[in-house]
Amino acid sequence: MLGNFIYYNPTKLYFGNQAAENLVNAISGYGKKVLLVYGGGSIKTNGIYDTVVNALKAAGKDFTEVSGVMPNPTLEKVKEGVAVARSCDADLILAVGGGSTIDYAKAVSASTWYDGDAWENFWVKQNEPAPDQRIIPVGAVLTLSGTGSEMNGGSVITDEETKMKLGKVFGYRLYPQFAILNPEFTFSLPKNQMVAGMFDIMSHILEQYFSGDDDSTSDYISEGLMRSLIASSRVAIKDPKNYEARSNIMWIATWALNTLIGKGKTQDWEVHMIAHAIGAYTHATHGMALAGVSGAYYKFIMKAAQARLARFARVVWDVPADGKTEEDLAAAGVAALEAWIKEIGAASNISVLGVTEDMIEDIANATLLGGGYKTLTRDDVIQILKASL
Amino acid sequence: MLGNFIYYNPTKLYFGNQAAENLVNAISGYGKKVLLVYGGGSIKTNGIYDTVVNALKAAGKDFTEVSGVMPNPTLEKVKEGVAVARSCDADLILAVGGGSTIDYAKAVSASTWYDGDAWENFWVKQNEPAPDQRIIPVGAVLTLSGTGSEMNGGSVITDEETKMKLGKVFGYRLYPQFAILNPEFTFSLPKNQMVAGMFDIMSHILEQYFSGDDDSTSDYISEGLMRSLIASSRVAIKDPKNYEARSNIMWIATWALNTLIGKGKTQDWEVHMIAHAIGAYTHATHGMALAGVSGAYYKFIMKAAQARLARFARVVWDVPADGKTEEDLAAAGVAALEAWIKEIGAASNISVLGVTEDMIEDIANATLLGGGYKTLTRDDVIQILKASL
Repeated sequence: MLGNFIYYNPTKLYFGNQAAENLVNAISGYGKKVLLVYGGGSIKTNGIYDTVVNALKAAGKDFTEVSGVMPNPTLEKVKEGVAVARSCDADLILAVGGGSTIDYAKAVSASTWYDGDAWENFWVKQNEPAPDQRIIPVGAVLTLSGTGSEMNGGSVITDEETKMKLGKVFGYRLYPQFAILNPEFTFSLPKNQMVAGMFDIMSHILEQYFSGDDDSTSDYISEGLMRSLIASSRVAIKDPKNYEARSNIMWIATWALNTLIGKGKTQDWEVHMIAHAIGAYTHATHGMALAGVSGAYYKFIMKAAQARLARFARVVWDVPADGKTEEDLAAAGVAALEAWIKEIGAASNISVLGVTEDMIEDIANATLLGGGYKTLTRDDVIQILKASL
Repeated sequence: MLGNFIYYNPTKLYFGNQAAENLVNAISGYGKKVLLVYGGGSIKTNGIYDTVVNALKAAGKDFTEVSGVMPNPTLEKVKEGVAVARSCDADLILAVGGGSTIDYAKAVSASTWYDGDAWENFWVKQNEPAPDQRIIPVGAVLTLSGTGSEMNGGSVITDEETKMKLGKVFGYRLYPQFAILNPEFTFSLPKNQMVAGMFDIMSHILEQYFSGDDDSTSDYISEGLMRSLIASSRVAIKDPKNYEARSNIMWIATWALNTLIGKGKTQDWEVHMIAHAIGAYTHATHGMALAGVSGAYYKFIMKAAQARLARFARVVWDVPADGKTEEDLAAAGVAALEAWIKEIGAASNISVLGVTEDMIEDIANATLLGGGYKTLTRDDVIQILKASL
């Protein structure tokens, strides 16, 4: 049921293949000093770097760069960004990349002018920056669809020493002020990264959808987003440069995790918890780790989630209900999800991601326990991981 | 296809049966002088007026009232509000009511400090207030679900002299700054007004959905919203105080017309154009006028909209596709919509709204011509109106 909540999402999105033409205008309202952050440098070969730098110059900005932001940004890397942001006294952090880069920009934003231990306060204790704490506005140019970080306040950071990967939602002040969403900016991505992003999007929706047996509008919107994602994924895996499919996928990613479809939902997120732990031990791509355990996870919770899985089968996958029991339908729902994982070429198991039987105890120990329809124990996680091999 | 667009919706929504507890906080950021606008005074009998006035007092505001805002707010009434807003030098306009009252607040906001002819400039010529024109921030306490005015920049005003009812989208500056959405505030509404609101919501979605034959995520979100509306409407007509159903309906109304599902759509809005003209000649409730012509309208465009109507039947109404031609399915889609109009007790024709054959020419003359799948002529409108009697 839609209970009491606040919906407020002040990020301004510029969408489309001409979206970057708005960049000069979007950055003009901030001070002169921009901290430009990006990842491994692919933006230098596909022309996006030049587009951004030209806009910065046209807007008369001075900019300093932090590059090499990794797929699961580390605390060490955040500290590096903080030092640069302080020394250049950045007025705006402009993230050019996927969710990791945008998460990183938010982390630097929250940490730069904070005097205490940012990791301890913001990630471990899950505090937000105090209302009077200075933060640096963040803007984004998205180059990879998946995390939804372009329109939310979330930031996931890994402490490599403790192998802890923790997410924090920072509240409205750290939502990107604006984001440039040009579907063509995702065209040069390797296919497996596109696929990982597609499953990441699906998993974000599933983690919110698989909770509650009420009749919430959030569920119906989620079903619409999943149906659209499935339809567009089938076009995109055959024709990765299909603009319509890729633009739908980019748009679905944003709405899958900008708080809308979570309203009124208790939510699950246990697949993410397991996948985070896998990521800490294997460096598997996040979306692939999610795919690798999803089949086993939804089979494991099938009894507890039976009614919802049956609805999932009927509405999302168009499984005909005729003559089937709810149990049959629920099983058909999981089977449809597993078939789609194979169809798009995502990871069907975690062995292909480098997980071996002897790693399972450690991964289970590193998994935060929770769940939507069934609260998992450590033994449950071990069972799911074994079934995922 | 999702083309180039900006998505920016800065309205802060407080949702739920405790939403009004946020009112003091929501209004605290504005100056001391508040212009309170509302309709016929039902808020004085159901307790909402007291809740709002207590919040105004708790926040230390001075407030001046304009009451009697009518269902289709007139230009004359806007002029009255402008005079009061000027004389009290309002810092905030707080609208307590349904879409008409919120539309009215936006109209007063845009017109108060404008020196020219506001009707001519903002409604007839469809200009926005210039960036440097002073406007008055608007906040809203919603008491009726339907128009979506609580989270958009639209304002529909009627010039009674010319019988012109014109809508204007004012851009981001006239979006309500905040809106209080408490589903219980709609409980005291007469049933026929609840039903009119439900059809208004459905029509908003249909007007955006019935355009284009591409594969846009907007269509899938629309389908989810329609499915949820249909499910909740069936609960609400039997049990109007069912909180879950009424909260879903309130939430769907907001998302049906806050620009999201229109992204990438050419859109239709011809049913609204005909219904506006009917409203000018009959004072029929807007939602009922929409219902009264919708069956005939979608039958009239059935050939041109055949593929979309077939999809509408399958996805929104769960009509089994087996063995049916696209033509059959399209007809089944219209039949399902007509059956739902009867089921919820909306107007199945325009005779019950007081339209008689001799009024049809005038109504057709007052109808702005356009359309999604088929651009209508005046003769087409006459045919649709005759079929709606």
